[in-house]
Amino acid sequence: MTEYITSEREQKIDFVNTTDLEEGAAKVIPKGGYGYIQSGAGDLITYKNNVKAFDKKVIVPGVLRDVEDPDTSVDFQDMHLTAPIIMAPVAAHGLAHVEGEKYSAKGVSNFGSIFTASSFASTTLEDIREAGGQDTNQWFQFYMSKDNGINDQIIETAERNGSKAIVLTADATLGGNREADKRNHFTFPLPMPIVAAYQSGVGQTMDAVYKSAKQKLAPRDVEYIASHTDIPVYVKGVQSAEDAYRSLESGARGIWVTNHGGRQLDGGPAAFESLETVAEAVNGRAPVVFDSGIRRGQHAFKALASGADLVAIGRPAIYGLALGGATGVEQVFNFFKDELALVMQLAGTQTIDDVRKFTLRDAW
Amino acid sequence: MTEYITSEREQKIDFVNTTDLEEGAAKVIPKGGYGYIQSGAGDLITYKNNVKAFDKKVIVPGVLRDVEDPDTSVDFQDMHLTAPIIMAPVAAHGLAHVEGEKYSAKGVSNFGSIFTASSFASTTLEDIREAGGQDTNQWFQFYMSKDNGINDQIIETAERNGSKAIVLTADATLGGNREADKRNHFTFPLPMPIVAAYQSGVGQTMDAVYKSAKQKLAPRDVEYIASHTDIPVYVKGVQSAEDAYRSLESGARGIWVTNHGGRQLDGGPAAFESLETVAEAVNGRAPVVFDSGIRRGQHAFKALASGADLVAIGRPAIYGLALGGATGVEQVFNFFKDELALVMQLAGTQTIDDVRKFTLRDAW
Amino acid sequence: MTEYITSEREQKIDFVNTTDLEEGAAKVIPKGGYGYIQSGAGDLITYKNNVKAFDKKVIVPGVLRDVEDPDTSVDFQDMHLTAPIIMAPVAAHGLAHVEGEKYSAKGVSNFGSIFTASSFASTTLEDIREAGGQDTNQWFQFYMSKDNGINDQIIETAERNGSKAIVLTADATLGGNREADKRNHFTFPLPMPIVAAYQSGVGQTMDAVYKSAKQKLAPRDVEYIASHTDIPVYVKGVQSAEDAYRSLESGARGIWVTNHGGRQLDGGPAAFESLETVAEAVNGRAPVVFDSGIRRGQHAFKALASGADLVAIGRPAIYGLALGGATGVEQVFNFFKDELALVMQLAGTQTIDDVRKFTLRDAW
Amino acid sequence: MTEYITSEREQKIDFVNTTDLEEGAAKVIPKGGYGYIQSGAGDLITYKNNVKAFDKKVIVPGVLRDVEDPDTSVDFQDMHLTAPIIMAPVAAHGLAHVEGEKYSAKGVSNFGSIFTASSFASTTLEDIREAGGQDTNQWFQFYMSKDNGINDQIIETAERNGSKAIVLTADATLGGNREADKRNHFTFPLPMPIVAAYQSGVGQTMDAVYKSAKQKLAPRDVEYIASHTDIPVYVKGVQSAEDAYRSLESGARGIWVTNHGGRQLDGGPAAFESLETVAEAVNGRAPVVFDSGIRRGQHAFKALASGADLVAIGRPAIYGLALGGATGVEQVFNFFKDELALVMQLAGTQTIDDVRKFTLRDAW
Repeated sequence: MTEYITSEREQKIDFVNTTDLEEGAAKVIPKGGYGYIQSGAGDLITYKNNVKAFDKKVIVPGVLRDVEDPDTSVDFQDMHLTAPIIMAPVAAHGLAHVEGEKYSAKGVSNFGSIFTASSFASTTLEDIREAGGQDTNQWFQFYMSKDNGINDQIIETAERNGSKAIVLTADATLGGNREADKRNHFTFPLPMPIVAAYQSGVGQTMDAVYKSAKQKLAPRDVEYIASHTDIPVYVKGVQSAEDAYRSLESGARGIWVTNHGGRQLDGGPAAFESLETVAEAVNGRAPVVFDSGIRRGQHAFKALASGADLVAIGRPAIYGLALGGATGVEQVFNFFKDELALVMQLAGTQTIDDVRKFTLRDAW
Repeated sequence: MTEYITSEREQKIDFVNTTDLEEGAAKVIPKGGYGYIQSGAGDLITYKNNVKAFDKKVIVPGVLRDVEDPDTSVDFQDMHLTAPIIMAPVAAHGLAHVEGEKYSAKGVSNFGSIFTASSFASTTLEDIREAGGQDTNQWFQFYMSKDNGINDQIIETAERNGSKAIVLTADATLGGNREADKRNHFTFPLPMPIVAAYQSGVGQTMDAVYKSAKQKLAPRDVEYIASHTDIPVYVKGVQSAEDAYRSLESGARGIWVTNHGGRQLDGGPAAFESLETVAEAVNGRAPVVFDSGIRRGQHAFKALASGADLVAIGRPAIYGLALGGATGVEQVFNFFKDELALVMQLAGTQTIDDVRKFTLRDAW
Repeated sequence: MTEYITSEREQKIDFVNTTDLEEGAAKVIPKGGYGYIQSGAGDLITYKNNVKAFDKKVIVPGVLRDVEDPDTSVDFQDMHLTAPIIMAPVAAHGLAHVEGEKYSAKGVSNFGSIFTASSFASTTLEDIREAGGQDTNQWFQFYMSKDNGINDQIIETAERNGSKAIVLTADATLGGNREADKRNHFTFPLPMPIVAAYQSGVGQTMDAVYKSAKQKLAPRDVEYIASHTDIPVYVKGVQSAEDAYRSLESGARGIWVTNHGGRQLDGGPAAFESLETVAEAVNGRAPVVFDSGIRRGQHAFKALASGADLVAIGRPAIYGLALGGATGVEQVFNFFKDELALVMQLAGTQTIDDVRKFTLRDAW
Repeated sequence: MTEYITSEREQKIDFVNTTDLEEGAAKVIPKGGYGYIQSGAGDLITYKNNVKAFDKKVIVPGVLRDVEDPDTSVDFQDMHLTAPIIMAPVAAHGLAHVEGEKYSAKGVSNFGSIFTASSFASTTLEDIREAGGQDTNQWFQFYMSKDNGINDQIIETAERNGSKAIVLTADATLGGNREADKRNHFTFPLPMPIVAAYQSGVGQTMDAVYKSAKQKLAPRDVEYIASHTDIPVYVKGVQSAEDAYRSLESGARGIWVTNHGGRQLDGGPAAFESLETVAEAVNGRAPVVFDSGIRRGQHAFKALASGADLVAIGRPAIYGLALGGATGVEQVFNFFKDELALVMQLAGTQTIDDVRKFTLRDAW
């Protein structure tokens, strides 16, 4: 295996939109790592629909609404967030930047939002926490081991590092059909310190990495985590009312609607197609987080208006990390905040609460 | 800042349709100015849908209707118009032609329709009026100042110059996400004499220009204008029944359905999607003006058949100004009139009143 | 005006489908004439939809139907036709071939179908009849003069030449917006002998030609023709139930559903969209003819299954005329007959009567 | 006729998806043979819709389902299949590989599924059986002769060679409009030993080959075969409830939903559009086999969830044969099995029975 040499940048990025970020990142992240980060499953139908689905609903502007300088901030549980836009769990930030999660966590912290650390991070939870600072808001995304002894240790590590939620990813018990990885013969070049007890990471295909984690996830696993820690458990990967009910019944205290960025099941619905249904099933009993396809402030607005409490971004932030380090990540979050604020003003909404009460219209 | 050198033409244009105009204008207007005029917001989805939305309705021709030489003229309030096609307010015609609004107002006057002067015009209302001639029909589009003293002065100027309507633009309390302007690093090269009391214009980004105007527009502002002048107030930017009701209740005497040419909120509806709903809400209590996406006579026909009393054009007329001065503007209006007359004949309608009673069919 | 030099071919054509014909004809017909024949109105939206509309309905094959060598022939009034596929009226076949309608009429006659001669033919009705032979089935398409004295003479000429129907084109009281003609500065290079009493043809734009004919067509004109000849009158250009009723009430004995090949009103429905509605309104009281967009046997099948008694083709036959003279025209008709027979067999239908009773399914 | 020189490969193929297979096969199969195999009818609308139709339904993943290593195997009648994915009948495998059906049957047998031999195979049933081995599962697809004496002999041959079903293809009583074959002037270069009593094959167009078989197929033919052998008869080409009823009533013991890979009727429905309707009509009284458009595991999943008991593949396996011989065919079947297993896991299903009970959601 040849050495994996990626970005070391820490600088301001010049960009207009997330397409600029994607194109820029393609030039600084090595091909294998970029293919892993950027692409999706199969024929990319679901992947592309993730973005296009937002066009099925339109925001009818409300005018004469006495609105100026909309406020994107939210109080979420004990946290005050600059905007309801958080960092989605993404494996191995080290692919995009030598400082990995240390810089992305720092950028998110500087912006003032939640950083969700992946089990497959390139950095320890200790280092991620330290990078974010003491007042940082961090969540931990959990790929369970097949061995509960290891799981107990990992949960304990998350507790010790102040994770405010454990996000159980239920839609990736194995890797999707990532053809870019196959064509690039991509294997993981970096260690995975958080799950080192069951997966070293280095030299593995992503499929092997996923399979080394627990595949037979079931409601009992939600119950297991919920009974072993006071940290609330979120179930990530919910796309149906039924799964929302099942998750809540087994102790989930948060529901995360996502199709894993179109990286798992090609031929499934766009994530946004499922949001309203799931949010109605949850019916306020738990927070709803949404990701997959957010590339614009208008997408975030539509997700919030369709029942999401928080919206997560993944790829754009990683591109920002590659292009500008912690500064780049913070800029990307500010891009989404600024676009959201602009849409809020044009829609005639002053606060995120207004957005959440806003009724979208079906597009023609 | 380098000098801004734009068209000085006054000549007949050779063109077949508005695409020719757009392509021609790209060659004579400097890049920054052209980008500002031509483009739209964000991913241009709403911008493009503005035109495509007309294809959702079809005009089923009526034959054997005893029709010849259809009459496009209308009597609107105290005005006789050659066609129900008027000039939309567009900022800074000086970007397209050194004579700015003087030539466009002259062209519209020669054609025999209404010229709506923008608050952000490159020319004074005095000069615009003089260019149009004494019998000219002019409206004034108002971006309010945050300072009512200034507003009173501007209203008084509009009165003095014979403006027959004050069009309060409610959908542009700040600038949309115009990425072309960002990429071109476009700043305004020209003064804005009408609003000089609060905005010089020169060297500003459009976003800064918009933000210098009043952002907290509310029904009380419609009331304020209505109580300070006898000129009827039109609210521009209405896309929902609710906003039509609110506008009328606060004293509006005209409703203008538009999404600002797709320049403000990307992710909102095509303007034509909203027209029928708004017109039904207005229900004849006030005139309905429509713009955004009119590129053909068939579009004007469909808008009139969907409830518009008047249809406004923007970009095509500005392209005509750049390519042919006052003559070019008049030609562009004649293009729309001629296409409308052709569609009227083929549809089996003799008068604009027939068009307004015509029932469109949903396309397959 | 330079001399107009067009095809003199009389030979077998090598072609697989009508796209081949179109591409081939572009090489042998002079640019101005080809543009006139090939193109449509405005943005070509309706023109293109004419073909695409057929995809909205699907033919669900019926199997095990005991079908072999389907019979495409029909008895229509006193005529036996090889297939229910007839020649639509097309102006000025002389644009495509020096022998003009003489060769196209001969080709259609050899095939065994109806030739509809246009008022704007390049050839006299006498010559067209002679070319078709004594047993030929010919219809006459009528663009009325503003002068009834001339109309009486033209009707008398049609009678004398054995026309079996007078097809009153009601959808072309003036020319559509043919941008190809504008760009080519196309004027008519050929005389129009049938209507020479009101229109010489030579050197005229098509718009001027159309306008020289009667524009104020009304039900009284159908009545006029019906009362001056025993030849049945067909009204061509009907796209709504209302116009079908009005036509029949004023004496029409045939209804022709068409949008003039997408050459008149861009922004109207695809012709096939209107067929079922019109046929239901006619309800068997008169024959229904259909044209516009027929490029395949499957299109003819779908039109027949949607209520058409006869299906007319225009451009493909003219391309055949240019590429192969009378032989080419006959080949084109055989192409449609063969494709129709193939579709009939695969659909499980033996006769045209079976086709007319076949129920199409809405496409997904 | 020049000699037909095709692939002799027997090796592992390097491919990621079926598009790779198609592109690879284009390089090793002679142009005429490749055109015959790869292409479809007419404008390829139905052909392309066969694949696109699957996007109209989405698989909503079920999470927390306690699923690991899904089992794709099925017991079908007396057979145990590695997956419910079988080989569709395809004429003349000799076009793709010198060993023809001998290698494809061997590959399918090694994989552990059903090989359906075409009447127009390049190999005798004896050789196909021998290639597959004694425990092989083989079906025989029947193009009946016009002569029942010959039919009796062919049925007897199928019986003698252990065929477990006789698949009567009802949708190809003649050849579809294969324009690729016309452009390539393709004639068959190989003998057809199974039907040699009525068709030699060599030097014939496919249309002539099809027409030499019986065209007047009717329910009595199903009855004839059913009364002359104990082997169950499947009717292939059913796309409507009515044809399902008629087939079952005449003795069919299996229903095969297909549009012949889009090779017969362009303008008909995508095969997947018809599946659910037919399966509901069959209502468990007989097995339902589906083919046409299966290019991914997700397609197979959707077909099984829509009522298919077995899913057949054609072109991809032939491409595998050309590129890798028996090994290639086996790899292609494993590709579909692996993709299906992945989709099963991501959908939350453990067995094929789970898949068949899975409810798809209509796509937006």
